[in-house]
Amino acid sequence: MNNFTFNNPTIIDFGTDKEQQIGQHLAAHGIKKVLLTYGSDRIKRDGLFATITQSLAVHGIAFVEFGGIVSNPVISTVREAIALARTHQVEAVLAVGGGSVLDSSKAIAAGALYNGDVWDLFIGKGAIAAALPIFDVLTLAATGSEMNNGAVVTNEETKEKFAINSMHTFPKVSIVNPALMQTVSRDYLVYSAADIIAHAIEGYFTASTQPRFQSRLVEAIINTVIETTETLLADPTNYAARAEFAWASTQALNGLIYSGTAGFSYPNHMIEHSLSALFNVPHGAGLSVIMPAWMKWYQSRNPAQFTRFAKEIFGLETGAQGIAALEKWFDKIGTPTRLSQLGITEADLPATIENVLNNAKWFGIAEIYTRDVVTTILKNAL
Amino acid sequence: MNNFTFNNPTIIDFGTDKEQQIGQHLAAHGIKKVLLTYGSDRIKRDGLFATITQSLAVHGIAFVEFGGIVSNPVISTVREAIALARTHQVEAVLAVGGGSVLDSSKAIAAGALYNGDVWDLFIGKGAIAAALPIFDVLTLAATGSEMNNGAVVTNEETKEKFAINSMHTFPKVSIVNPALMQTVSRDYLVYSAADIIAHAIEGYFTASTQPRFQSRLVEAIINTVIETTETLLADPTNYAARAEFAWASTQALNGLIYSGTAGFSYPNHMIEHSLSALFNVPHGAGLSVIMPAWMKWYQSRNPAQFTRFAKEIFGLETGAQGIAALEKWFDKIGTPTRLSQLGITEADLPATIENVLNNAKWFGIAEIYTRDVVTTILKNAL
Repeated sequence: MNNFTFNNPTIIDFGTDKEQQIGQHLAAHGIKKVLLTYGSDRIKRDGLFATITQSLAVHGIAFVEFGGIVSNPVISTVREAIALARTHQVEAVLAVGGGSVLDSSKAIAAGALYNGDVWDLFIGKGAIAAALPIFDVLTLAATGSEMNNGAVVTNEETKEKFAINSMHTFPKVSIVNPALMQTVSRDYLVYSAADIIAHAIEGYFTASTQPRFQSRLVEAIINTVIETTETLLADPTNYAARAEFAWASTQALNGLIYSGTAGFSYPNHMIEHSLSALFNVPHGAGLSVIMPAWMKWYQSRNPAQFTRFAKEIFGLETGAQGIAALEKWFDKIGTPTRLSQLGITEADLPATIENVLNNAKWFGIAEIYTRDVVTTILKNAL
Repeated sequence: MNNFTFNNPTIIDFGTDKEQQIGQHLAAHGIKKVLLTYGSDRIKRDGLFATITQSLAVHGIAFVEFGGIVSNPVISTVREAIALARTHQVEAVLAVGGGSVLDSSKAIAAGALYNGDVWDLFIGKGAIAAALPIFDVLTLAATGSEMNNGAVVTNEETKEKFAINSMHTFPKVSIVNPALMQTVSRDYLVYSAADIIAHAIEGYFTASTQPRFQSRLVEAIINTVIETTETLLADPTNYAARAEFAWASTQALNGLIYSGTAGFSYPNHMIEHSLSALFNVPHGAGLSVIMPAWMKWYQSRNPAQFTRFAKEIFGLETGAQGIAALEKWFDKIGTPTRLSQLGITEADLPATIENVLNNAKWFGIAEIYTRDVVTTILKNAL
């Protein structure tokens, strides 16, 4: 096991009606004025916006709203929100939404206190020395953003989908009410399942140091996601399944399963970020296409772990059987497994490959992910 | 899944040589003077005391030492240390040791800022409104005290082994260097294995709401403890096994596996606390005696979970087989499974039963654990 420091200060307030306590949490942190960020107007139609702003009012907290954050969020939107945050001198950011809103809000929180353009923080031109405190009410369980310090945003001019992280960008408090997720569409449920599985397997397969305990935790997460996704597809109102799905999602990317592991990388995310940046495909849908394609290429590098995966997840014997079973399960739940299902054809490969090769530098794995390798993986996904 | 709040602010600094950074951690928290608590003089002979005090000196941190904390720590010792902490106006407590030293130190930290006798805090006569910040260097992985806010101490006059917990008694920083644990005796290794398993199974079997995800996390912990204990018995210097054992121990009682569960209780700990309080047996040794005896009585109340346990831990089919396999495994590793091995005979049962019945009130399960039930369980353990 490698040396590590585990420090996750986020308070998770989990369960039914917890969003009613958001004002209390902000007040406990001395906040008087927030930037309230969100995506579509759905939260106004379904009453969540009203619930939250009522809770703010009860605690005397003013808010400035900033809606319209889209999935695969873009840096121009983050810049607009930073300007608004500065104009109104808000003291915190309150994100209401899924990973895109949370990630944007982390970038807004860091950018608001950075003296320069926020994209600098994504490309190493500037460092995050501080951030406005971040609070959130999660409406989609997938990215794990509610209990980590990372944020991924796309620069739509440069077609780069890059990340920041810093001790300053952990949310102070995240409200996770699984009941708010019952209205998530069937598509986004299965994309989310793919996203969580992707978070769990990147280190599991690629780490040079991968202790068995951490592998078991990963398997606990994946088995839970598979089981609860099937339950939710049959019955979207099943609260118990929704809750386990959400809590497994949080655990998949809050540092726990990566603690003590070493030498891991995020190749599936690296490749998928190019699909999102170029073709604006949903992140999870891109991941379910890339994962089996990547696994077919990668399995010979870590055959024992692929055998373990096949056995512990699907009760099968060989690594190849495990990969086929995962692909089949993605097909079964209805998340894509082919680039064509995303509208991406062979003609799009050259541009995609270039974008991936650029990402590979930032992900620190350009030596492994050469043009030949990336081509092989993407062709596996055609 | 039940509503819950997860908030574990402890920084875990895990790995080789991490104890050399303790001064840096204290300095980062602005500490200038600590009470350095420990158990036996072993840490002076093996160099750990020197390493730690050198690190303190480098950062200009003064210390007052308080050694001699014994296992099954007693409240009179805690009182002495509180007096010393007050006399020297220390700003923090730095515990160097295992669960007994850590638990005592939490009580010292809370008691030092409490205007009254520290035992009040254990019996509800007083509340913990503040505590000195707590830091520790762990030398024995078993109790999970390094990443939770609980502390168990025995009142040797009243023969009560009781607990406190509070948001103020989470350690600020815990150093967990598995290499420091290589000198743990064979006996204490196997007692520790039993202790960790006990932490994992109490909720697993007794919770009225026990989500499958949380059960899977418990099974990941138990399977890791079984595997690594066997490795360590064969090769005490196996760092990888020592590290997985330690990290599994931390995860067994840091709130994770209990998150979202409800209606659970700690009957094995309740009964064992009487054995420790009356006969001063090692906590883990008492637990390995009580667990199989308790399981035999309890299994009919939750047969499905006992079947699950048998299958997921031992690959067996029935609950009874699983219990027998655990008992056999305890015998194999050499931790006791009979009261007689602890020197406790049938003649001791009446006094033990009375003590357990008193504990049952504090544990909130007196209605279930009647005289008849406690007698049955203890007789199972004869």
